[in-house]
Amino acid sequence: MSYTAPVKDMLFVMNELAGLAAVNALPGCEDATPETAEAILEENARFCSEVIAPLNHSADKAPSSWADGKVTTSPGFKEAFRQFGEAGWQGVQHPVEFGGQGLPKLLATPCIEMLNSANLSFALCPLLTDGTIEALMTAGTQQQKETFIANFISGKWTGTMNLTEPQAGSDLALVRTRAVPEGDGTYKLFGTKIFITYGEHDMAENIVHLVLARTPNAPEGVKGISLFIVPKFLVNADGSLGARNDVHCVSIEHKLGIKASPTAVLQFGDHGGAIGTLVGEENRGLEYMFIMMNAARFAVGIQGLSVSERAYQKAVSYARDRIQSRDLAGSPGPVAIIHQPDVRRMLMSMRAQIEAARALSYVAAATSDAAHFSDDEATRKSNQAFYEYLVPIVKGWITEMSIDVTSTGVQVHGGMGFIEETGAAQHYRDARILPIYEGTTAIQANDLVGRKTVRDGGAVAKGIIAQVRQTAAELQGDAQLQPIAARLAEAADALEQVVGYVVANVKSDIKAVFAGSVPYLKMAGVVLGGWQMARAAAIAAGKLKSGEGDGKFYEAKLATARFYAEQILPQALAYRTAIVDGGAAVMALAEEQF
Amino acid sequence: MSYTAPVKDMLFVMNELAGLAAVNALPGCEDATPETAEAILEENARFCSEVIAPLNHSADKAPSSWADGKVTTSPGFKEAFRQFGEAGWQGVQHPVEFGGQGLPKLLATPCIEMLNSANLSFALCPLLTDGTIEALMTAGTQQQKETFIANFISGKWTGTMNLTEPQAGSDLALVRTRAVPEGDGTYKLFGTKIFITYGEHDMAENIVHLVLARTPNAPEGVKGISLFIVPKFLVNADGSLGARNDVHCVSIEHKLGIKASPTAVLQFGDHGGAIGTLVGEENRGLEYMFIMMNAARFAVGIQGLSVSERAYQKAVSYARDRIQSRDLAGSPGPVAIIHQPDVRRMLMSMRAQIEAARALSYVAAATSDAAHFSDDEATRKSNQAFYEYLVPIVKGWITEMSIDVTSTGVQVHGGMGFIEETGAAQHYRDARILPIYEGTTAIQANDLVGRKTVRDGGAVAKGIIAQVRQTAAELQGDAQLQPIAARLAEAADALEQVVGYVVANVKSDIKAVFAGSVPYLKMAGVVLGGWQMARAAAIAAGKLKSGEGDGKFYEAKLATARFYAEQILPQALAYRTAIVDGGAAVMALAEEQF
Repeated sequence: MSYTAPVKDMLFVMNELAGLAAVNALPGCEDATPETAEAILEENARFCSEVIAPLNHSADKAPSSWADGKVTTSPGFKEAFRQFGEAGWQGVQHPVEFGGQGLPKLLATPCIEMLNSANLSFALCPLLTDGTIEALMTAGTQQQKETFIANFISGKWTGTMNLTEPQAGSDLALVRTRAVPEGDGTYKLFGTKIFITYGEHDMAENIVHLVLARTPNAPEGVKGISLFIVPKFLVNADGSLGARNDVHCVSIEHKLGIKASPTAVLQFGDHGGAIGTLVGEENRGLEYMFIMMNAARFAVGIQGLSVSERAYQKAVSYARDRIQSRDLAGSPGPVAIIHQPDVRRMLMSMRAQIEAARALSYVAAATSDAAHFSDDEATRKSNQAFYEYLVPIVKGWITEMSIDVTSTGVQVHGGMGFIEETGAAQHYRDARILPIYEGTTAIQANDLVGRKTVRDGGAVAKGIIAQVRQTAAELQGDAQLQPIAARLAEAADALEQVVGYVVANVKSDIKAVFAGSVPYLKMAGVVLGGWQMARAAAIAAGKLKSGEGDGKFYEAKLATARFYAEQILPQALAYRTAIVDGGAAVMALAEEQF
Repeated sequence: MSYTAPVKDMLFVMNELAGLAAVNALPGCEDATPETAEAILEENARFCSEVIAPLNHSADKAPSSWADGKVTTSPGFKEAFRQFGEAGWQGVQHPVEFGGQGLPKLLATPCIEMLNSANLSFALCPLLTDGTIEALMTAGTQQQKETFIANFISGKWTGTMNLTEPQAGSDLALVRTRAVPEGDGTYKLFGTKIFITYGEHDMAENIVHLVLARTPNAPEGVKGISLFIVPKFLVNADGSLGARNDVHCVSIEHKLGIKASPTAVLQFGDHGGAIGTLVGEENRGLEYMFIMMNAARFAVGIQGLSVSERAYQKAVSYARDRIQSRDLAGSPGPVAIIHQPDVRRMLMSMRAQIEAARALSYVAAATSDAAHFSDDEATRKSNQAFYEYLVPIVKGWITEMSIDVTSTGVQVHGGMGFIEETGAAQHYRDARILPIYEGTTAIQANDLVGRKTVRDGGAVAKGIIAQVRQTAAELQGDAQLQPIAARLAEAADALEQVVGYVVANVKSDIKAVFAGSVPYLKMAGVVLGGWQMARAAAIAAGKLKSGEGDGKFYEAKLATARFYAEQILPQALAYRTAIVDGGAAVMALAEEQF
């Protein structure tokens, strides 16, 4: 059940692919030296593997529970969260002024990966708090920041996102929760919110809910939604805790996975009204929530990477230990199943997709840093566009992949994988929420097609594809890299055709284009992940030639990149056909023909 | 939570694709008229949906439980099993001489599909009993048949398969259970068997275990394994139940899914020895067990179809009811999500794969009937070879597909899919065992490569591919069918390349070939499923032209076949690349590099 953080691969990706040195050179990122990065990763790895990871399976067996409006979290969670806060891990990427470490996203990302590998259910609490901090940093008043953020960063308080209502899931236009102004600058909120992660728990002194609601006479739809801060305990002027607010957890859900993380139904205002304060301006709530959601979407993509990595480590360990059948090439007796070609194929498939996902998401984190910290506006703008194109892909592709990877992890275990005690099944159950929450894969794909591809006529997408092609061209000369280059070039052509198709047809045949939106998203992930693996292969080949560094690591990287190119990248061509030629049949049936 | 048997599609496949009339014309199949088939399907559909299906979700919440060696099954199971036996459903495909209906496999297959759609956990008990009957019919003495089979068919007793031991899973050469001859024709058995489905329960008077064990001085490996009958209660000469035998259930597993079906650990001989009788000859046990396993493997493939169908029905129903977001083409207010293109794509993907799986497996059942009942030896032989080629594909491809389909079923439900109360998650959990038990997908793929492809130099495979190409050629003329024909021809070419690669390279590079074995199996499923969908499309087009029958049904069939051709079949090309070009990287890493 143990977890060993893949620090070596993380550092390789950070230094060689994501350009840590360049991030370090950005104004405000002076502390993020390669040495500091390595030290932080090592320390975080120790904390996650020693303190958090051991609680993963035990907490699944003893999930959070509800009684009389109170939620008791799994044994060990409260103490672990105290240590997490005290060690400063909540503050890695947050402002120094409120007690954070102010480090770039590129450095925070591996920390988030490790925490989630260690324990997806536990990590959700800090993940939501991160989002709350981001939203308040962007849209909160100075007083709101001062009241809340330092308490978040120290781990004293935690944050939540309250969007969903029974009738309003993917469609936030349907939000009904009401916020009535009291005339003193506060509002009273009334309504029901569901699926609120860590909406109630016993790990912190206070829980601060960010809540979407409508003020009286607000416009219909998404343009009439405002964002409110509704703390569980009201906060006095001196920062001390005041009265219990009228927000109550009436139940928590019985879920397929992430059972240790309480998913609350919250009632606002059943006893006179929950007191809240407005964030930013009225009717701009969805805009602010999107700040929070974009951060959270990226983090959920990382969750997909994390649970995949954990499942992979478990599968490798089982495959090394389980003795069964002879080696196909001949052996005196039965051997460990890691010698069986199909087990090897499964492990390589997990590994290759994980490494590609890590590479692409860390590269995305670095572009986010450039978009935030660069002193050159054009650089900020181009990096922001690149990052925004990648967010739905990181979220959608990696989480969908994690279903496949954790399923393969069960399969490697054979019959033992189906027994809950083994632990492989937990990852398969836990992963299933990832393509759903913080916007389903379809919602991510709508974003990719609508805001990220069609709006600029495919300009950003085509710019990225040009870079992919450039990488393929650079690899062509080297015999060892040529098989990777050939597959990558082919995949880049296919992606360009798809982008062209989307842009050209979205007006004339909108339903056919959107019917291909999820395949387009997955395909983009497959191709851009392959691009990063190709870059990694080129670097590894170079290091092997120069004899620099850990030869075994670079050999493995090269072989894994080739596996990816030959076994994963060809899926891009199947997606191309489905998207470009396959739109007609998707909508062909009438509703009653299903 | 309801289930409506897809009788219309079943009858279409039976009559139009699998050739029920031709099966009906076989000697011994005179009773299997199209009218009888329809009547039996309607009656079975009623029984499964009214009696068995309502127990599916409730039994998942109240799984079978163990105490003091006894297993109590879920509420309602015992009574439902009594009704199942009394109605004669255990005997559909078994001999009339022992109380069965003696009907062909083509007719039994939809009944098995329905029972498993209704309740996978419940259906496992009859499934294992079917296998026991097949093994005794083949290798049992007349007395053994008379003692046991009528009691199986009436539902008074049930059967189990005892293969796995802690150290012997996929590798049965490692079986250690001992059988010591007593000199009176009986043996005493000693050992531990694990993962024994319905190894103990309260639904029948007696449980008859078929057990693999080694006699003293038996050769090592699989050639020293014999098969024994070990009943829970010994059977007196007059057929009445005698003493309790020394086989005891010491625990049942806590599993990811199929929780209502007890998975037992059985101890044989802890109190002096479990009394057993030999089936057939010593050391031929594995051969007999394979009879049972081949029947069971086909049935597990059907389980994949069944759980997929159930998940599909649930997803369609939710997609019709859930109101969220406007129609992309414009609508005054939010609409049911079935109008959203991505929901439509998910439903079509489920539907297309289900229909392809049903078509291919029913066609396989019909070839099994021709192999058994034809009075022409050449016909028997060629059909047997076709059937044997298809068994690992039906088992491996359909069960792997069911993971994807049930996962998509959860996704259609959004956040509600992750809540256990909704029921979609149960299908996702239940399905996960299907690619594992009765031989993992890798074991099926080994069979497909080794015994079914390499042994005859690919002759049977190439014969089937020639038929696929013939179908593609027949479709070429029709403009409506041309897109399907083009994709099918392309896929057939790819499959032929793969078969050629496998045959040509198995000696020189056995590991690379077997590293591609599971991709080959999945690809064969995708292509042959596409072949059947193309045949279905041609028939539907013909019916639409002639104005015969239910036009809406044929239109839907045509659209679904086209969806399959454009969205699913192109995967074949990705598999081709992975298998033919991608073998090198699979085994490239040393064990310590993982």
